[in-house]
Order: sequence, then structure tokens, then C-alpha cells
Amino acid sequence: MPSIGVGIVGLGNVGSGTLSILHENARQIQEKLGFELVVKAICSRSLAEREPAVARLFPDVLRTTRWQDVVSHPGVRIVAELVGGTGVAAEIVSEAIRHGKSVVTANKELMAAEGPRIWDEAIRAGICLAMEASVAGGIPIHAVLREGISGDRVEALIGILNGTCNYILTEMERRGEPLDVILAEAQRLGYAEADPSADIDGYDARSKLSILAALAYGVRVLPSDIYLEGIRRISPMDFSYAHRLGHTIRLVGTARQTDAGLLLAVRPALVPLSTILASVDGAYNAIWVKGVHGADTFYYGKGAGPQPTGVAVVSDLMRVAREIVNGSPERVSPFAHDRLREYAPISIHHQVRPYYLRFRVVDRPGIIAALAAILASAHISLEAVLQEPCTNKQDLPFVITLEPSSERAVREAVEKMSGLDFLLEPPLALPMEPPLG
Amino acid sequence: MPSIGVGIVGLGNVGSGTLSILHENARQIQEKLGFELVVKAICSRSLAEREPAVARLFPDVLRTTRWQDVVSHPGVRIVAELVGGTGVAAEIVSEAIRHGKSVVTANKELMAAEGPRIWDEAIRAGICLAMEASVAGGIPIHAVLREGISGDRVEALIGILNGTCNYILTEMERRGEPLDVILAEAQRLGYAEADPSADIDGYDARSKLSILAALAYGVRVLPSDIYLEGIRRISPMDFSYAHRLGHTIRLVGTARQTDAGLLLAVRPALVPLSTILASVDGAYNAIWVKGVHGADTFYYGKGAGPQPTGVAVVSDLMRVAREIVNGSPERVSPFAHDRLREYAPISIHHQVRPYYLRFRVVDRPGIIAALAAILASAHISLEAVLQEPCTNKQDLPFVITLEPSSERAVREAVEKMSGLDFLLEPPLALPMEPPLG
Repeated sequence: MPSIGVGIVGLGNVGSGTLSILHENARQIQEKLGFELVVKAICSRSLAEREPAVARLFPDVLRTTRWQDVVSHPGVRIVAELVGGTGVAAEIVSEAIRHGKSVVTANKELMAAEGPRIWDEAIRAGICLAMEASVAGGIPIHAVLREGISGDRVEALIGILNGTCNYILTEMERRGEPLDVILAEAQRLGYAEADPSADIDGYDARSKLSILAALAYGVRVLPSDIYLEGIRRISPMDFSYAHRLGHTIRLVGTARQTDAGLLLAVRPALVPLSTILASVDGAYNAIWVKGVHGADTFYYGKGAGPQPTGVAVVSDLMRVAREIVNGSPERVSPFAHDRLREYAPISIHHQVRPYYLRFRVVDRPGIIAALAAILASAHISLEAVLQEPCTNKQDLPFVITLEPSSERAVREAVEKMSGLDFLLEPPLALPMEPPLG
Repeated sequence: MPSIGVGIVGLGNVGSGTLSILHENARQIQEKLGFELVVKAICSRSLAEREPAVARLFPDVLRTTRWQDVVSHPGVRIVAELVGGTGVAAEIVSEAIRHGKSVVTANKELMAAEGPRIWDEAIRAGICLAMEASVAGGIPIHAVLREGISGDRVEALIGILNGTCNYILTEMERRGEPLDVILAEAQRLGYAEADPSADIDGYDARSKLSILAALAYGVRVLPSDIYLEGIRRISPMDFSYAHRLGHTIRLVGTARQTDAGLLLAVRPALVPLSTILASVDGAYNAIWVKGVHGADTFYYGKGAGPQPTGVAVVSDLMRVAREIVNGSPERVSPFAHDRLREYAPISIHHQVRPYYLRFRVVDRPGIIAALAAILASAHISLEAVLQEPCTNKQDLPFVITLEPSSERAVREAVEKMSGLDFLLEPPLALPMEPPLG
């Protein structure tokens, strides 16, 4: 019986989860594969100090603090790069490929930024590259888009791609507390990083959307070309208003094929409570895919965490090991398409949606008239005006909803409004996602 | 550039959907594969009469009413068996394999009954066998379980696997009409067969659960060994009571690893409204998977229909074509496991759940006392008694809910109750599924 040697680089959350699953599921993995996956080397800076408990499950393997020992190890056929980031991780991956090793990675940042180049290196070296764990940890969305529904064309895709944001938003919704309170708590509990920017400003979700766009549309879009807005301006009152409108608020990554081109954005949006997307609470992720032929499909699971992400890494190790045993190293591109087209998404200005505009004003007569005049001059139709009971005339919130309008027109109107002296802050404009289906 | 020839046998719903997708998505398919899929032969009895419109999209292709012409066609490398049933379909598949053709099938009945034998034939012949379309048409659950989350172990799986039943139940729920009215309407609209038994008595869902059990647990369970109850006894009042209990009613297929063994059942059950499973309406299917490591994942999509099922067939054709081009015909078993173990699931008597018991009685004093005495003698704890307002003393419905009890005890109690002269029909006992997560 053949066996395939594996080297693990990085023993953080994902590396530890991966090792514990490889240990606990060894028998089942062998039953599925018909051969063994054998860990041959483990690399982590932490090995210089106290050996992590999970490493002790593998007493007879090489332990090292130098990743170079893993990528050059003669018994290692697959290197799992679980370090993260675009610095040393890029070196590890490229050096592994240079040594003829296949690579499994959980690194969305690296794959969004340099994935196509790395895939080219992989093709030339005749090795496999797999990255199921890079998007929506526990959801096998790569397997779905690479093979499961590859016969379809994707019309649109909406994802809840950042578990930290989703946790913060659902807690704000549930408890009515402001973002900074929930965020501080999430940081204490270890759900959010000390520097929360990658999550709450949307950078993490944007890298993931860049990878999903490649899988779904065969395009290479740089994360920096994707429209981005984080969740910092969302406040508990926005949930009250959203509920009155039959919606909730989520940070969504959207990709849509329009007549003008592909539209990509990561931003908070109103999501109808009647849709399955609104039932995605807490640290869960979800991806809704609208196919031209297959209609709606929807995928849901834990977005992160050592174990769910570890499942993705182990499943990739199994897949790659099968490819190696069968001698077919480049059967399916990790991006689902044989080649990606370089692509710049169309401007967010083209997006047409109903909008939610939330204001905070110093109350006085004529406010609605002033705002309505600006909307009228931008040819935007006002749908409704909503106001929750409030006695503070010095800080009065209310909401105007707009009939479907272009982002360009809404922005122009919002810009004009920002000069009005009764506004305490610029209006918050959120698109309202249409019902799925 | 290589190209791979495809033969289509059967031009019903799925065959037509498959051909139209192969035609419309030809360019995208080639972009993903890096080579072409070319239809070489089409077989259908309907070709003896008027040529179906979809066949006219492929003018230069062999048309025949004899499937033998397709499976022996020298240009055909993959045969798509889209005939259905276990009769001639079994012959088509075996003959195709004998001719060295790979096979893609949408046939759950055949694969549930004879899949392992066919897979053995496929291995010996060195060809590929794929069946994504056989379970939950539009949901790529095979790709998910074969590769996407293969690193995990499945603890439990709950599926809504029959779109016709789900449509009927959600319409009963929405409109308060009885099953026979909704069924007759569904038959008129073409959503239900003239003989509805395969759907509403649960046989269809049971074949699918047998296949899912193989994928998830590596076991071969005959459909006839799976506990089965259809939806004929569900009435609109059951939805009223279920709602009062915070639940809805769905036909679910469940597989659970218990200490005593694997428990499999297809039956109507109460599903908590708070769970994502309860949001599966109409003809949609869904499968919730609880992994030991990956926690909950949930998959949702159209259960049937020419286009969603066609996507599954085309995706399989692409996958198999890749295997052929790369010369690796048996990389992953269609059952996710290298070999299946023959397995008889443990008796449904072992199932422990809260239960819903619904009665129809001729009202008189002492009814609850009589029923409670029987429950007490079976050591079953009663949780609540619910009664909707009703003035008809001659046909009074009410519900008793039970604390978690074994199916064995509940059945014994129900059997004893059936002798009571105030009952208009035997009590209806439905398990209450626990919240997911």
C-alpha cells in the first residue's frame, strides 16, 4: 500500500486543528483513500520553546523551527502552508514548489494577491496546489465551484465571508449594544484580533471575494480593485429601522454579472429577513450562488476556527494525495478555470438598488423638504420616511428609503446633503439586497 | 486540443436539460476544461416520432432509438444514462462499462439498489462512474461528501430529499388545505406524478438516503432496510399544533451515528422553526451535515427539474472527461469510500426523541386520564397537552407532547391506545428533531 508524506508548516489555530484531525481520523482517512497519509515533519517557531500538545501526538516525526527543513524533506510530498500572510508564506510556497512538493494552503491573502502566479509555478513544476481552507473555512465552496456545479454559469453570488463581522453584527442586533462594546468583548473572548481592521474594515472578506470571483467567473481581480466598505458606521438603531423594513444588516460580498460587466463589492447591506441569508447568525459564513441553469444553491458553515478550517486542510491533503498516487498532478485548477483573465470590475457607480439612507439631525422644520429636494434634483424617487419614537431633538435619527437608484446618483445626492447644517454626520447609505431566487 | 465524446441516453426532463446546458455553456465548459466536450450520439424512444427541439441543437450527431448504438459508438467515451428505473437502465450502464465507456447517471434507484456492484464493474473495466445528479439534483452533495469535507467524520445528517413532498407540505402549511387537494393540484401542474407513491410514501427519499449513508459512512445499506413512513397522515391541523410548539413539519431523511450503531430513517418530523432547515420551502431540497470536527454545514438548492439536475449531469461529464484526459480513471469512488461495508442499520426502536402525539377523539370525560395512564405504564413522561379551539365534540383533535422517549416505548403506548373506543383513528406519532448545532 502506498503512503503519502505530509509536512505541516505553522502550528497556530489551523495547524493545530489539522494535526488533531489527521491523528483522530487516521483510520477513516485510510478507509476513504485506500492508502495512508503520514505526517513526516512539523515546523513551528513555538517548537523552540515548549512543544505544543498536538505535536506530541506525532512523536516520531521531524520537528523543526526552520520551514526550509520541511520543504526540502525527502519524505514530504505535500507541504501544508498554515503560516498566513504574504511574507514568509510566499517564500515557503514557492520553495516547496521548487522542491517538487505539492502545496495545500489556507492563505486567502496570499492566494488573492499572488495565486495565479503561484498556480503557474505549480503547473510548470507538475505539482498540485489546493486552497479549500482559504475561503469560508468550514464550507467546501472550492469543491462546489471547481467541480460540483462547474457545468453551470454563475449569474450572481452573495457571501457572508467574515465570521467576526457577522458575530459583531448579530450581537448588536440581538442586544442593541454599539459596535465598540461588542468588539471589545469579542477581543476579550479571542473572537476578534487586537487590531480588528482586517475584519471590520472588510479587507479579509475582500480577499475572499477576489478568490470567489476567480472560481465563479474565471477572472483575476486584485482585491484592491474591489469596492470596499466596512461595518464601523453601523449602529444599533440601524437594526431597528432594518427590522421595520423586514430586513437585517450583514456585511456581504457580492459578485454579479451585469450587462455592463462584473460588479464586485464588499459592504454592509440590508438583507430581507424572508431569505435564508438572514438566518446566518454569529460566526457562521454562507455563500448563496445564483446559477443561470441550476437556480439558487446555498452553502453554510463555520467560517473559521481550528477544527472547521482543519477539515478543509485535511480534505485538501486527501485530494492532493489521490492526485499524486494517480499521477495526475494538474487535473483541475484551484481557480476552477484553466486560465484566469485579468479583469477590472466595473465601477460600483453602476449598481442599481433600493437604498436605505439613515440620518442623524438636529430637529427643526423643513428637514424632509430639504432632503427631498436634493433627491428630486438627482432624479431619485423617495419610497418611504421612517422615524422611531425619539425625544432628543438635538440628535434625532430617521430613515428614508429610496426606490431602485444608481449608486452614482445616490452618492451625488449624499454628497450634496453633507453640506446641510442640520446633519450631525454624513448620511449612511446602505443598499438593500433583493430577495434571493 | 483533445476532445471527449459524450453519448446521451434518455431525452426526458434530465436529458433535455443536460443537452440544453451542453449547448448553451459550450464555451464556458471549454474554458474551464481546456478541451471540448462533444456530443456524439443521442438516444431516445421519442426520436421515432417527432424530433425534440433540444435534439435539433445538435444537428450532426447520431440519433437513435436503440441505446445499444450509443454504448457501442466508437466516438463516445462517456455515456450519460438518463433513463431512470432499475430495468433497462441497469442494462445500459453494464453494457456501457463492458464497452469501456465511463458512465454518468442520475439514477438514484439503480445506484441505491446496485451501485456497489456497478462500481465493482467500473473498477475492473478501468472506467469512471459518476452520479452527482442521483441525490438532491441541484445540490452538489456528492462533491461535498466525496472531497469537500472528506477529512471529517459525519456524526449526523438530516436531509429534505424529496421536492414533491416538501412542496405539498409547505402548501398545506401556507394554505391550510388537506394533502389530497394539494396533491391533486400538484399533479395537474406536473409537480407530482400520476402515481404519487414514490414521492409521498417516501420511497424516493429512502433511495437517496441509502446513497447518502454510503457517502457519509462508507456503508452499503439496502433501501428496504431503512425505516420508512410517508406523509399521507399529515393534516393541516398538524401544522397549527406544530407552530404553537415553535416547529414546522417536513419529511426528513436522517442518519445518525449512535453508540449502538447507525440509525437511518425517512419520516415526517417536527423541525424547529428556529433552525435553517425550517426555511426550506417549496420544491427545494437541503442537507444538513453535522461533522465531528467541522461542526454544522448546510447545503440547499433545487431538488429536481431539468436544469438543476442537468447542471449536476454536465458537471459530472466535465469531471469524468478530466479523469479520462488525465488517464486516472478511478481516483475517487462515487461512494466516497474505497470500499463499502455491508450494513444493516439498527432498529428505529433505539431512537430517543421528544415526540408529538396527535389524537382525534369523540369528546367525553376521562380521555386524558386514560391516555396518561397508558403513557405512565410505558414509563413515558408527558410534557404538555395542547388543544386548539374546536366546537365539534364528535371529532376533537388535540396533541400531547412527550419528553425524550424511545421509539419502542412510544410505539407500545400507541398500540395500547389504539384499542380505546373514543379514538377516531390511531394516534399520529411524530418525532421532534432537536435544534441543529
